[in-house]
Amino acid sequence: MIIDCHGHYTTAPAAHTRWREQQRDAFEAGVAPPPYPGVSDDEIRESIEGSQLRMMDERGVDVTLFSPRASAMAHHVGNEDVSTRWTIVSNDLIHRVTTLFPGRFVGVAQLPQSPGVAIERSIEELCRCVLELGFVGCNLNPDPSGGHWTAPPLTDKSWYPFYEAMIELDVPAMVHVSGTVNTNFHATGAHYLNADTTAFMQFLQGNLFDDLPELRFVIPHGGGAVPYHWGRYRGLADMLGQPGPDQQVMSNVYFDTCVYHQAGINLLFEVIDAANILFGSEMIGAVRGIDSRTGRHFDDTRRYVDALDLPARDRDRVYEHNARRVYPRLAGALS
Amino acid sequence: MIIDCHGHYTTAPAAHTRWREQQRDAFEAGVAPPPYPGVSDDEIRESIEGSQLRMMDERGVDVTLFSPRASAMAHHVGNEDVSTRWTIVSNDLIHRVTTLFPGRFVGVAQLPQSPGVAIERSIEELCRCVLELGFVGCNLNPDPSGGHWTAPPLTDKSWYPFYEAMIELDVPAMVHVSGTVNTNFHATGAHYLNADTTAFMQFLQGNLFDDLPELRFVIPHGGGAVPYHWGRYRGLADMLGQPGPDQQVMSNVYFDTCVYHQAGINLLFEVIDAANILFGSEMIGAVRGIDSRTGRHFDDTRRYVDALDLPARDRDRVYEHNARRVYPRLAGALS
Repeated sequence: MIIDCHGHYTTAPAAHTRWREQQRDAFEAGVAPPPYPGVSDDEIRESIEGSQLRMMDERGVDVTLFSPRASAMAHHVGNEDVSTRWTIVSNDLIHRVTTLFPGRFVGVAQLPQSPGVAIERSIEELCRCVLELGFVGCNLNPDPSGGHWTAPPLTDKSWYPFYEAMIELDVPAMVHVSGTVNTNFHATGAHYLNADTTAFMQFLQGNLFDDLPELRFVIPHGGGAVPYHWGRYRGLADMLGQPGPDQQVMSNVYFDTCVYHQAGINLLFEVIDAANILFGSEMIGAVRGIDSRTGRHFDDTRRYVDALDLPARDRDRVYEHNARRVYPRLAGALS
Repeated sequence: MIIDCHGHYTTAPAAHTRWREQQRDAFEAGVAPPPYPGVSDDEIRESIEGSQLRMMDERGVDVTLFSPRASAMAHHVGNEDVSTRWTIVSNDLIHRVTTLFPGRFVGVAQLPQSPGVAIERSIEELCRCVLELGFVGCNLNPDPSGGHWTAPPLTDKSWYPFYEAMIELDVPAMVHVSGTVNTNFHATGAHYLNADTTAFMQFLQGNLFDDLPELRFVIPHGGGAVPYHWGRYRGLADMLGQPGPDQQVMSNVYFDTCVYHQAGINLLFEVIDAANILFGSEMIGAVRGIDSRTGRHFDDTRRYVDALDLPARDRDRVYEHNARRVYPRLAGALS
């Protein structure tokens, strides 16, 4: 079985996306948003069958861990109520996808984060998604401000109540930022990768996993800059008097394979243990085009992984077993 | 000849560093700082001979492009006057090193940037360093706020007057941030690499080099996350309707070799043309320890480059000719 741990509903029906604009406009105007529109099962099927599902079939991917569009989470928009409402309808839509295509999509939750609002306030929606909707994980935004980085580091104790809920529910979080309001940072070309790198270094500096040894994170986009600078991180740990990254971070952290060229994937597997790598593509996402050098989609990461010709055990771990280990609820969701 | 394009005076005499603390304290107390202390030639010799110079000799490096300690630039401290004074004494100290060790160290300028202060105000110090002190380049901080990222992107027209001065003087800038006040970002483990990645993406999005085709930047630390994600950048350029990164950015941008393990250096040279790579180590800098796997210093990047066994032409370009091309004033400084 091939499990893609990183997919977002980037092709959500237009009515859903349009309502978000109306919600934002209503907030700015200080009025109530219009009611959330009806979205038919056929509209959802149509939005999936010709895009995500077709490409999964073409690429031989069996299951995608599926969450609301990351760049549209936009936790900085409006206030806590706005974020909560948008999160609930977005997660509900994911749930409908998982129900319409059982065994092909498994839900991962957006959280109703909002700048300056305590992360405890996201626990209720996490519980709802996991316990009522059958979701197996969540996306945690380390920067709900959208590029101003006003939240405390992920190792700060203020995050712990949420982490304790994750552990209680036995679900991991993917560290995933959203769109930006800071013009320095292109979302998918800078902010995403910077957040991955930043989170890793926070984990290396801190002692989070000593406190919470059962906590698990996926750092997406191949770990940001980290594998390319693996020697730097080994050396920084040494200078900080911390255990090396293998001991201090990779006990609890996993990277996906969202690296869109062969040389990058080769490096990832050269420096990171296959036990810490989960297959992912973020398809259909940041980079949708076809690479003129290969004639294939940039984000068809299965081709790069297959080209490694991994030993069968590693291949199975990366495509399936690691995902089942990191997301234990997957077994139930797929049964 | 082997030229290291990236060295900082991290071993500056204690009196210099102590004065900076006094200057900061005086600013906070609203009083004048004490006079800058006398630093003898012997103190400078001692700070260099046993550290930077010894290691250059051990590693077979002939010349280092030498600038004030990057993490200590701290443009966010104090105000414009504080930053200007600190910058002048720091550059003067670099000049003394270059005078005491002619042919071994060539100066690269810190700039008196300050959050919210127009970059034009840094032109005078750049001119002084280049025209009076014989410096060949400068370090430009894209985030003088120290981790709040409040300045406009490097492609914004507000930077152009400074760029025009760079072109007039025929000097490049290394894009280099400093220490951080934002606890999310470890300076050398996150902020430095994030800034490299951010700057590259700004260049890819913008049209800076169409406007100023003679402008040249070095993006240090091996280009941040960029080579590892080269496919992502090729794909993003395609999605943005921009020319590819080779055309849009690498016409004017160079990466150094400050990547502290063999696998990373291998990747750098696999995806980036040798014409765009400058040898650098940032020794003695962020990572000072010895890699237990190799028994060598992490930052002894010459070993990694030598291990590539490059064709002689590429080797010479990376070690010498590219630096002479990017820093044309180097010829005069070394003659």
